[in-house]
Amino acid sequence: MRMYDIIKKKRDGGELTTEEIKFFVQGVTDGSIPDYQISALCMAIYFKGMTSRETCDLTFAVRDSGDRLDFSGIDGIRVDKHSTGGVGDKTSLVVAPIVASLGVKVAKMSGRGLGHTGGTIDKLEAIEGFNTTLSDADFMKQVNELGFAIVGQSRQFAPADKKLYALRDVTATVDSMPLIAASIMGKKLAADDDCIVLDVKTGSGSFMKTVEASKQLAKLMVDIGKSAGKKMVALITNMDRPLGYAIGNALEVIEAVETLQGNGPEDFTEVCLTLAAHMLSLAGKGSVEQCRKLAEKAVADGSALNKFIQTVAAQGGNKKLIENTANFAKAKYSHSVKSVKDGYIGNVDTEAYGLSSLALGAGRNTVEDEIDYSAGIILKRKTGDKISVGDEIATLYSNDKTAFAKAEEILLSATEICKNKPAEEPLVYCIVD
Amino acid sequence: MRMYDIIKKKRDGGELTTEEIKFFVQGVTDGSIPDYQISALCMAIYFKGMTSRETCDLTFAVRDSGDRLDFSGIDGIRVDKHSTGGVGDKTSLVVAPIVASLGVKVAKMSGRGLGHTGGTIDKLEAIEGFNTTLSDADFMKQVNELGFAIVGQSRQFAPADKKLYALRDVTATVDSMPLIAASIMGKKLAADDDCIVLDVKTGSGSFMKTVEASKQLAKLMVDIGKSAGKKMVALITNMDRPLGYAIGNALEVIEAVETLQGNGPEDFTEVCLTLAAHMLSLAGKGSVEQCRKLAEKAVADGSALNKFIQTVAAQGGNKKLIENTANFAKAKYSHSVKSVKDGYIGNVDTEAYGLSSLALGAGRNTVEDEIDYSAGIILKRKTGDKISVGDEIATLYSNDKTAFAKAEEILLSATEICKNKPAEEPLVYCIVD
Repeated sequence: MRMYDIIKKKRDGGELTTEEIKFFVQGVTDGSIPDYQISALCMAIYFKGMTSRETCDLTFAVRDSGDRLDFSGIDGIRVDKHSTGGVGDKTSLVVAPIVASLGVKVAKMSGRGLGHTGGTIDKLEAIEGFNTTLSDADFMKQVNELGFAIVGQSRQFAPADKKLYALRDVTATVDSMPLIAASIMGKKLAADDDCIVLDVKTGSGSFMKTVEASKQLAKLMVDIGKSAGKKMVALITNMDRPLGYAIGNALEVIEAVETLQGNGPEDFTEVCLTLAAHMLSLAGKGSVEQCRKLAEKAVADGSALNKFIQTVAAQGGNKKLIENTANFAKAKYSHSVKSVKDGYIGNVDTEAYGLSSLALGAGRNTVEDEIDYSAGIILKRKTGDKISVGDEIATLYSNDKTAFAKAEEILLSATEICKNKPAEEPLVYCIVD
Repeated sequence: MRMYDIIKKKRDGGELTTEEIKFFVQGVTDGSIPDYQISALCMAIYFKGMTSRETCDLTFAVRDSGDRLDFSGIDGIRVDKHSTGGVGDKTSLVVAPIVASLGVKVAKMSGRGLGHTGGTIDKLEAIEGFNTTLSDADFMKQVNELGFAIVGQSRQFAPADKKLYALRDVTATVDSMPLIAASIMGKKLAADDDCIVLDVKTGSGSFMKTVEASKQLAKLMVDIGKSAGKKMVALITNMDRPLGYAIGNALEVIEAVETLQGNGPEDFTEVCLTLAAHMLSLAGKGSVEQCRKLAEKAVADGSALNKFIQTVAAQGGNKKLIENTANFAKAKYSHSVKSVKDGYIGNVDTEAYGLSSLALGAGRNTVEDEIDYSAGIILKRKTGDKISVGDEIATLYSNDKTAFAKAEEILLSATEICKNKPAEEPLVYCIVD
């Protein structure tokens, strides 16, 4: 088999065989296929696409390129939720405790943040002492006992994806549905869950800018998961504005805790309850409506919050911070961003909000960067809210006073102030299953 | 300027600016752009094409990536002929002496063969003593005195093309009109001719398989040459069969000499006279019809042959071989390939004929291979000829007896024997100017 023939076949619109796709991914993984052939094939796939069968084969080959987990030591149904990434997206911190408190297992691996999006592992590490590295045995023991454990990705999952993504990123071949789907699902399927709920973010703060594109990607990923024997559902959710009001690691943990206390922002609470309902329903706990009620109850009676506190304690975190979020260390400096116009908050560039938070020290430009856990943004007004000159749009927090100027500039130019109140947009556009 | 943005722009169907194209070619030449970005752009160009303006800019940037010749020391009009490459194509050996004998200068740089096509320089080196490496001063002196000199490409012409071609060759991005045109013309324009006649070969033995594609490529190259201030014309000629009957270095020199003597094969003679007529006409020697008569006369009165003999002698070659081609060293072994069917010779895979000759030792698989100058094929019958069981299709020549089996097999399976006489095809399909 020759890589040249595989490139030519795809270039001419042909359907690659399972063997050809395996050969390609194997060669990416072991370095036997040179980068220039990999990027040429990615560009040909960009133009010619892939059939569902090819996309599944690519996903499975990516999954099989590295370690795979075995969760057979965990009793009961295991469910996971995966978000395609957004700004202010702390849903995992809320939905996992809800679901686990209702007897469904959540054995979660999460990533770190890079660029404008934060990572769940970084958020948890804002909790003093929280250990995101557990041995396999400890991890499974905790899932069995508490129903929930969460660790960073220490293993070599899907190394082919790492290599492919790095090349796609510099050759303008990221925006290809089958390549995106295989990248996300290839990593996701290396874990060993029974059910997966996908949260496909749509809009200015996410990867997919239109609902149509998101639905297409969601359908592709749902089908891939099903053909791997998983129970699957995807929600297309709004990322044309940040989720909730908090952006930044400790600030987001606090907002998540407030949500588990029943005092969270309306939009964020709604997305969490919807996701949790679908997770529970996939896991066989009843219809989505029934499961929604179960989730609401778990918040109302404190069992979800209690599950989160137990998990934090089990993983070495200081549970006093969760029991009273006033104990979180504050950033040394804060700064008010005020409106210079009267009107309503209109469209916002959510990605830029993420970049503003990054400028404050809450994120990473490169994987080596250190995070300032207390840095970030608390929004005071969001799309649709009335605002007058001098009213606060947001408060910025940082331990670096000099960061405010840039962060404010980014945030202001990302915030449209318009005369008329903008039409409301749905939080959850649709369900794909 | 970032290569990423250039790839993305072309991927999205945009027109690259002159500066972007220069940046790209500069980066290819100095190695600052990595191969994986070069191949991604080539694939994007494959799918999205280039405008005439972009193609011209690419050609000029490729031309300017290395040395350029200065022929201002040569008196009079300089004309060149460039073939896109075929099997049995020894036209340069005939047309250059004809044209030079009529007072038009031919300062020729030629290449070596690789794969199924032979190279003019290899053919000349089949002449004992022939020196294909002259100093610039000696080269120009000979052109001024004799009207014709021919050397190999010792300089670093268009290094960007060398790099680009090597990458295109392994990433299935060779078959792109603008990339082909820029590759051919970028090298051609590094020389310093006033007029260029392009011989665009079409059919099974050439790069372009259809007349339509050849016309498109020819038009593109003619326009590029004109925009560089050259007088240009292109002939679309038939390469659905080998040109003449001889394939292989010494065998082709002998056939060229016979043609200069007025005893050449009809098809080969016709193509040579047509090309020579256009070269002379471009150089201002009259209409194509008038120039055709001049060319015929130069063959008939022996002046073209005499010019060839003078050139061979001037470059150190043994002119006795040309004066009597029986003096050429013969291959030790020969082998008859015979028909096992009655009928007519139908379609032949001309490229395979080239590969059969390669198997006999007449060509190179890699640039390091040594050539057996006496090896090759003399066809006994060509497309349209009647044949009976046991009749000879060809005689194979080699100094390696063991090569015959493979060469015969290739040749036989490349030769269709059909019941009915196939329709005649034109030798010259059309003129593009």
